Amino acid sequence: MLPIALDAMGGDHAPDAIVAGAREAAEVHGIGVILVGRSAELGDTGELEVIEASEVIAMDADPAASVRRMKDSSLVRAAEAVRDGRASAMFSAGNTGATMASALLRMGRIKGVSRPAIATPIPTPEGDPTILLDAGANAECQPDWLVQFASMGAVYARKRYAVAEPRIGLLSIGEEDSKGNDLVKETHALLRDLDWDGLGARFVGNVEGRDVMSPDIDVIVTDGFTGNVVLKTLEGGIKGIIAALLGAFGSTPEAAQAADTLMPTLEPLYRRFDAESIGSAMLLGVRGVCLIGHGSSSSAAIVNGLRQGAELVSSGLVEGLTEAVAES
Amino acid sequence: MLPIALDAMGGDHAPDAIVAGAREAAEVHGIGVILVGRSAELGDTGELEVIEASEVIAMDADPAASVRRMKDSSLVRAAEAVRDGRASAMFSAGNTGATMASALLRMGRIKGVSRPAIATPIPTPEGDPTILLDAGANAECQPDWLVQFASMGAVYARKRYAVAEPRIGLLSIGEEDSKGNDLVKETHALLRDLDWDGLGARFVGNVEGRDVMSPDIDVIVTDGFTGNVVLKTLEGGIKGIIAALLGAFGSTPEAAQAADTLMPTLEPLYRRFDAESIGSAMLLGVRGVCLIGHGSSSSAAIVNGLRQGAELVSSGLVEGLTEAVAES
Repeated sequence: MLPIALDAMGGDHAPDAIVAGAREAAEVHGIGVILVGRSAELGDTGELEVIEASEVIAMDADPAASVRRMKDSSLVRAAEAVRDGRASAMFSAGNTGATMASALLRMGRIKGVSRPAIATPIPTPEGDPTILLDAGANAECQPDWLVQFASMGAVYARKRYAVAEPRIGLLSIGEEDSKGNDLVKETHALLRDLDWDGLGARFVGNVEGRDVMSPDIDVIVTDGFTGNVVLKTLEGGIKGIIAALLGAFGSTPEAAQAADTLMPTLEPLYRRFDAESIGSAMLLGVRGVCLIGHGSSSSAAIVNGLRQGAELVSSGLVEGLTEAVAES
Repeated sequence: MLPIALDAMGGDHAPDAIVAGAREAAEVHGIGVILVGRSAELGDTGELEVIEASEVIAMDADPAASVRRMKDSSLVRAAEAVRDGRASAMFSAGNTGATMASALLRMGRIKGVSRPAIATPIPTPEGDPTILLDAGANAECQPDWLVQFASMGAVYARKRYAVAEPRIGLLSIGEEDSKGNDLVKETHALLRDLDWDGLGARFVGNVEGRDVMSPDIDVIVTDGFTGNVVLKTLEGGIKGIIAALLGAFGSTPEAAQAADTLMPTLEPLYRRFDAESIGSAMLLGVRGVCLIGHGSSSSAAIVNGLRQGAELVSSGLVEGLTEAVAES
C-alpha cells in the first residue's frame, strides 16, 4: 500500500502532535506515512519522508479562496500526492472546508457524484460503528443528494465493515413516513422507491436521534447541517458524562479505590466511546481517500485516524463507490 | 394554585403509570392534580378528582383531525379545564401533536406569537439546565419565528431559573457568523441586530452541538426538526452509555462490589442525566401552561413532570411571555 500523505501543519496541536502520531503509526503499527509541510518546523521526523510545502492554510481561513491561492500549501500538496499516485490517501486535522476543497479540486469528483459527503463512524455499545453521513460537507441539501448519500453509505458499510446487506435509515423526528421536514419527506419518498435489491442494501425507513447508536442500523442518512449537529451533540454529551463520572470517582478516598478496581472493565468502554478512538472521517465521492480529523486531535487521535485510513484504503472503498455510482 | 389537569389516558403506560404518578405527586409532594379520562378505567384514584372524558386520541392518530373530531377526548377536556379556569396547566404523555393542537385550539395563542415552540430543559453536569427550543413543534421554521423563540426562551430562563441576563445561542455547525444553513445565516443576522438590552438578555452568537450541555449557555435556539433530533440523540447516547456502564459494573464480582461502593456518588449523577428527571417540556406561546411528557413516561417521570409543571405555573411564565411578546 502507498503511504498516507499527512498534513503536518493542520490541527490545534500541529505540528508536534501530528508528527508524534505519524511516527507512532509508522514505527508501532507499520503504516506508511509521508508528512506534508514545512520540514524546518517539524522537529525530529525519524525515518518519515517529508513533502515540502511552504504555505499553511489557517484553521479559520476561507476554504475555497485559500485553496485556490495557496498552491504550495500542505493541504494542496497532500491532495496532489494522492492525485499523482504518490500517496494512497490524504489526511488532515486542519481546516475541514479547505481539506474538502483541496480534495475536490486536485483529485476531482467520482463521475456521477452530485456532492461528496463526510461519512463518520459513530461508536455503538456493541459491534461495528453506525455510519452517519453527511456529517458536515453540505449545510443545504437536495433530496436526490441524500439518495446518493444512502447508496454511498451502503458501499461504505459493505466494504469497510463487511456488512452483507446494510440497513439504511433516514434521520427524522418520528418513524412514520409522514414525519419530518420537507427535505426528509421528499427524500423518504425517493428512498422508498429505490431499487434496494440492486444496491444490495435495505431501507428501514425513518430513524430518530436515539437510533444513532443503535446496533440495528448500519447507515444513517441526513443533511450536513443536521449530521454535524448530531455528531457534536453526541461528542459533547459523552464528554460531559465522562467528566461527571471522573468527578464522582475522585470525590472520596473510598470512591477512588472502588474506581481503581473498576478501571480494567471501564477502560475498553472509554476507548470505544472516546471521540478519538476512530480518529478520522472520510469524504466520500472524490477520486481518492480523503480523511478528515478533528481540529483538537491529539497524537493518539492521529494514530487512530491513520489506522482507520489504512483500513479504508485497503477496503477498496473508492473503487466500490466508483462502480456503484456508475451503475445508478 | 389551581390543580394540574393530567391526561390519564395518554402514554405507553397509561392509565396505570399516570394515575400512580398523579397520586404520588398529590400525596407525597402536595401538588394538586385532576385526572382527565374514562373514570371506569382508572382503578383506585384515591382522593383525586376526575374529569370524565369518553374518548381517547391514540398515540399515532392524526393530531389536527382527532382534536377537531373527538370533542370528548381526555386531551381536549384537559385543555378546556385550563381555558375555563378550572386547572392551572394541562399535562399529557400521549400524542404530542394532538396535545399541542388541543392547547392551540382550546386555550389559543398568546397575542403576537407566530408559532408556539416546545421548550425542553437539557440537564447539564452542573447548575441549571440549558433550555432548548424548538424541540419539535415546528419541523419547518422561518427566521422570524426563531427570533421569537429566542425572546420566549429568555423569558423562560429568567422566570423559571432566575437567570438575571440569559445567554442565548443559535445552534449551528461552527461559531463563525458565516457558518450554517440558510435558515441559520438569516436568523443570525436578525438576532445580531435585536435590542438585547431591551430584552434583558444577551446573544452569544452561534453555538455547536457540543455546547448543548454547556454551563455557559442558558438558551439554545433552533428549528423544531434539529431540536428534536438533538434531544433524542442525547437521550439515546446517554442511555447507551449508562447501559454500557451497568454492564461493566455487573461483569465480575469484584466490579459489582466496587460499583456498590460507588453508588452513593453515582446516584445523584444518574438522577441528573436521566431523561425522566425533568419529566415534562412546555409548549411556549399558548395562553396557559401546556406540558408534554415522553410517551414512555413511567410513574416517576409523571411525578417529576408534575413537579416541573407546578414550578412553571408559579413562576408566572405565561404572564411574562404575554408581556414580552406584546412589547416586541
